[in-house]
Amino acid sequence: MSEKINIAVIGTGRMGSVHVGNLVNRIPEANLVALCDIKLDVVQAVAKQWEIKRAVQHYQDLLEDKAIEAVLIATSTDTHAEILKDCANAGKHIFCEKPLALDLNEIDEALSVVEQAGVKLQVGFNRRFDKNFRQVRQIVKSGELGRPCLLKITNRDPALPSLEFLRASGGLFLDMTIHDFDMARFQIGEVDEVYATGSVLIDEALKEFGDLDTAVISLKFKDGTLGSIDNSRQAVYGYDQRVEVFCLNGTAMAENETEHTVAKGNLEGFHTARVEAFFMQRYGPCYVEEVREFLRCVRDDQPVPVSGEDGRQAVVLGYAAWKSFHENRPVKVSEIAG
Amino acid sequence: MSEKINIAVIGTGRMGSVHVGNLVNRIPEANLVALCDIKLDVVQAVAKQWEIKRAVQHYQDLLEDKAIEAVLIATSTDTHAEILKDCANAGKHIFCEKPLALDLNEIDEALSVVEQAGVKLQVGFNRRFDKNFRQVRQIVKSGELGRPCLLKITNRDPALPSLEFLRASGGLFLDMTIHDFDMARFQIGEVDEVYATGSVLIDEALKEFGDLDTAVISLKFKDGTLGSIDNSRQAVYGYDQRVEVFCLNGTAMAENETEHTVAKGNLEGFHTARVEAFFMQRYGPCYVEEVREFLRCVRDDQPVPVSGEDGRQAVVLGYAAWKSFHENRPVKVSEIAG
Amino acid sequence: MSEKINIAVIGTGRMGSVHVGNLVNRIPEANLVALCDIKLDVVQAVAKQWEIKRAVQHYQDLLEDKAIEAVLIATSTDTHAEILKDCANAGKHIFCEKPLALDLNEIDEALSVVEQAGVKLQVGFNRRFDKNFRQVRQIVKSGELGRPCLLKITNRDPALPSLEFLRASGGLFLDMTIHDFDMARFQIGEVDEVYATGSVLIDEALKEFGDLDTAVISLKFKDGTLGSIDNSRQAVYGYDQRVEVFCLNGTAMAENETEHTVAKGNLEGFHTARVEAFFMQRYGPCYVEEVREFLRCVRDDQPVPVSGEDGRQAVVLGYAAWKSFHENRPVKVSEIAG
Amino acid sequence: MSEKINIAVIGTGRMGSVHVGNLVNRIPEANLVALCDIKLDVVQAVAKQWEIKRAVQHYQDLLEDKAIEAVLIATSTDTHAEILKDCANAGKHIFCEKPLALDLNEIDEALSVVEQAGVKLQVGFNRRFDKNFRQVRQIVKSGELGRPCLLKITNRDPALPSLEFLRASGGLFLDMTIHDFDMARFQIGEVDEVYATGSVLIDEALKEFGDLDTAVISLKFKDGTLGSIDNSRQAVYGYDQRVEVFCLNGTAMAENETEHTVAKGNLEGFHTARVEAFFMQRYGPCYVEEVREFLRCVRDDQPVPVSGEDGRQAVVLGYAAWKSFHENRPVKVSEIAG
Repeated sequence: MSEKINIAVIGTGRMGSVHVGNLVNRIPEANLVALCDIKLDVVQAVAKQWEIKRAVQHYQDLLEDKAIEAVLIATSTDTHAEILKDCANAGKHIFCEKPLALDLNEIDEALSVVEQAGVKLQVGFNRRFDKNFRQVRQIVKSGELGRPCLLKITNRDPALPSLEFLRASGGLFLDMTIHDFDMARFQIGEVDEVYATGSVLIDEALKEFGDLDTAVISLKFKDGTLGSIDNSRQAVYGYDQRVEVFCLNGTAMAENETEHTVAKGNLEGFHTARVEAFFMQRYGPCYVEEVREFLRCVRDDQPVPVSGEDGRQAVVLGYAAWKSFHENRPVKVSEIAG
Repeated sequence: MSEKINIAVIGTGRMGSVHVGNLVNRIPEANLVALCDIKLDVVQAVAKQWEIKRAVQHYQDLLEDKAIEAVLIATSTDTHAEILKDCANAGKHIFCEKPLALDLNEIDEALSVVEQAGVKLQVGFNRRFDKNFRQVRQIVKSGELGRPCLLKITNRDPALPSLEFLRASGGLFLDMTIHDFDMARFQIGEVDEVYATGSVLIDEALKEFGDLDTAVISLKFKDGTLGSIDNSRQAVYGYDQRVEVFCLNGTAMAENETEHTVAKGNLEGFHTARVEAFFMQRYGPCYVEEVREFLRCVRDDQPVPVSGEDGRQAVVLGYAAWKSFHENRPVKVSEIAG
Repeated sequence: MSEKINIAVIGTGRMGSVHVGNLVNRIPEANLVALCDIKLDVVQAVAKQWEIKRAVQHYQDLLEDKAIEAVLIATSTDTHAEILKDCANAGKHIFCEKPLALDLNEIDEALSVVEQAGVKLQVGFNRRFDKNFRQVRQIVKSGELGRPCLLKITNRDPALPSLEFLRASGGLFLDMTIHDFDMARFQIGEVDEVYATGSVLIDEALKEFGDLDTAVISLKFKDGTLGSIDNSRQAVYGYDQRVEVFCLNGTAMAENETEHTVAKGNLEGFHTARVEAFFMQRYGPCYVEEVREFLRCVRDDQPVPVSGEDGRQAVVLGYAAWKSFHENRPVKVSEIAG
Repeated sequence: MSEKINIAVIGTGRMGSVHVGNLVNRIPEANLVALCDIKLDVVQAVAKQWEIKRAVQHYQDLLEDKAIEAVLIATSTDTHAEILKDCANAGKHIFCEKPLALDLNEIDEALSVVEQAGVKLQVGFNRRFDKNFRQVRQIVKSGELGRPCLLKITNRDPALPSLEFLRASGGLFLDMTIHDFDMARFQIGEVDEVYATGSVLIDEALKEFGDLDTAVISLKFKDGTLGSIDNSRQAVYGYDQRVEVFCLNGTAMAENETEHTVAKGNLEGFHTARVEAFFMQRYGPCYVEEVREFLRCVRDDQPVPVSGEDGRQAVVLGYAAWKSFHENRPVKVSEIAG
């Protein structure tokens, strides 16, 4: 069908293969024409599973192919900037997983190339597509509750990732809180100042490389709204994902989704389900919706819903949080972004 | 203060002493002037506890006292009718615990005497004063949800009463469901037909005297609304008291009240409180409100909110349920009330 | 892949096309090889949409094809029995939408043919695959709450179907309550007696052909458990689907699923989402799971989870309900099934 | 009865008269013998309402009376310290409303006199007696959830108090957040550092005297636990009072209490009650329980549950918050308490 966008997926690891499955089964706007992964056996297995004809090891091999209109980048973070630039220069529209990069200079360079190339770039902040958080935003933006006063975000993983993963992750504020910084900008707007506190309470091993597993971050927005984010790497009852925007004339609160709706009553009281286990259960539909929206924007030449600048700002806020933590003082966002 | 009503309590057992405590502490409209109980030691102890000056063994001793304007009858059910008649003949306004009596002829005689005497009679269907059930009724009566279609009542005790109590109780439909029959009339209106099913699932000993511990009762109201009541004598998670009125354009559901609002989350999920333990926890405020309302009606010469006829109809429905159960067929209310 | 079952879908209308989409995208155990619908343009359009190579008008054309191991029948109810028999005689395993038929003799004949042919037959009682109702059953069957005492089922559609649909539906008890009868057997076991009440409160036009839009049905199970089902054709707040199994030592209640988890608080109180709109939103995953389970049973030669006898019993209970309603008396299931 | 404690209430304004009503009706451990208020007409009216024989204008008149064993101080904050000292010197046990004083030197002096006099002093942090917050604490202290990691407190008033009241209140952190500081110490323990942000979003008039109406406060506890408090003076949906203690192996969350339990469903979704209106609805039972516990401690010579030092620490934290806000930096509690 002429309206489908020909797309290739670069990086077919954990997140990449989720996108591949979605592109095949749930995204009618896409025509998935090629896969790429530096691990040839991995990409070949994924290609076989989903019956994709072309599987290559080096993304450079895809750049010449004029039939490929868009790429979805889901490689490791340290490779994003280079791939982004090459794809942009080759005239491909780009959907890139978050974070864009961990180095702000690299990000700036990449965004500059993207801009010059005139291609579209959308960053994978999937939570903006969660129906509950969207409902909160819609209620607040409608104005019926008056101006926002307080933003509260709870973001807690069910279990600590591997130390190996954490070592390369950029640390709590750049790996985990980065989602909350983007959510804060999505719900309220620009942040003026960040104050971050953190502790190591789950696993002492994190201290070796200066990471944290528990944090509370205070935000001051430019419009006077105040915010608070709390993070933990170990919520044993499930993936705790809540957002509240408290306004002058009311509040809008997105509560957790649960595994089922059954309440068991016995002598001890009532017992209900765990929170949805992890991101694939909670945000599964978002991974579909964000890519559909990207493809529709490519097709209709509309601005994408999560821009490169959005991707950059979340990283800036992550660095502001780390600086705040290390210097134990509130840090202006302008100190980083300057 | 001249506006207070002088009242005496006849019967100071379990329910009577609850009323005494309320009259002393929580009902400014009352001036509690005398207590009466056939067990002299009981009434004297209660009088001492609450510092009531007059305590008598025989209610007849109170009838001559012109200063006593009203009586609250909380004696055993089999004595209600006689005391009612004597008090009415003595010109006292009467608040009488439910049921009025277990014999319909006795009820009719008593109501006739009350009518001739021109005194007020209110029956103790306390649940009509529960804030949640009142809220349901108010929503439905406002008409905003359209006409009622279905009434659902769940009424489950936390634990089986003693066999001794049950033997003299009139059985499940006259002791327990009677509250639901009154609630049905309070929420919807007159019942046309009753179909009652029941089982003995908790304690086989009930079979000896033909009682039940579990029941489902279907109702057809005169206006076409349908109803369903379910009863059990053993809800181990607490006193389960729910009412739903489902209407053409929506529904109004009163959920249970709980012991506290805390949710504990752990690996198994979330754990919340038991339902409020029993009638004193759930309906405590109703016992105050019903008597205050009675006294205000006496003082202002207004119709009472739960009439003698209301008390009679609930008993009629109890008999209809028993007849339905024994003959295993739907029974018209007119078969009993005729 | 050799483990996939070759299947054809007969009937590609509303429900059939849902199954087609699932078979293509969400059921790895299936190889969908052919479609059939008496409306040729319909089946050709569906075939094109999902890229299925073979589309025929007459199911008889598929029977000879030895490569087709199983069929999914989603035609109109009045054709089920004949197609069932022909497919069984052709040696195809069969998944058939509910109800099997509206005529008990036809059902008996079809089941007899199926038995002789030795093929598997599963009936489409999808709600048995709902995760919430399964959780209730698992809790109850584990025995931790003691024996069941009361079963309560609420089943309310969001809006009245067309009169045209209703006229051919078998009426409320055979079209709508039939799901609840199957759920009753799934949760508790065999029903001994049914008492059905009903009203026309939504649309007077139903009276012309003797149908109902509102009902309360009482059940007595063979083991002494009591049950109550309530139905309405118009729950404006969404598709109200609740089940409670109340037991000697506790209760298990499946509550509704909602459109989102956001609570908006303002001067009037809190406002939360509608119940999931209708069966595709609520039971979408069940349509996938029931067919996957069927295919696994075919592949591994295991008994199917919803048998032909299950399909028959639900229809028997529907007739018992109609008989009870028309004669206004409790009806033994044995009066119908005899 | 010899076990009752003879008590006098000093200050019979808003809070004082609440205590008077409780002492008369709900606190069997008390014998309320005298009232005092600098406004003679006020104290005489309260005395008449509750039938208390002795009503004086000057608290000094009560000090000589050996029959008075305890006093409850509910005067304006600026008079607490002096009355405390005089009552302690007169050998009276003291229940004092919060805050002890707004001047730390005055507090220190008063506490020193109390200690020398050897009388008991309990401070009126009523929320420690809320059944929900107590349940949270009990779960956490039991150790079943492992060590606390995060404390979250939401404390929002339904509406802004009068500017006149606010001017003399000590400002948000000493008037409102002071309850949360005490709750933080009750749930977790000693605070090491405070970082406070605040805004004026409800009423610009607050800026005239440097107060705030909206705030987010970050806490670091000495044991590494992190905390976040959010405050607002205007939650239009009711008195929002929530506490969560998130631990290594789970969480304990106290949700709000609501005006009723009714859910109304209509085309827009479900509508439930406002949060309990204000402190008398939510914390009414706490005002009874805290005084009963005080009297029991006096009678049995046990340590009181909320000490003078507890009262002092909450004020210290209030000053730390103000210092943090004014200097826009985290402030060590030791900077204030030194």
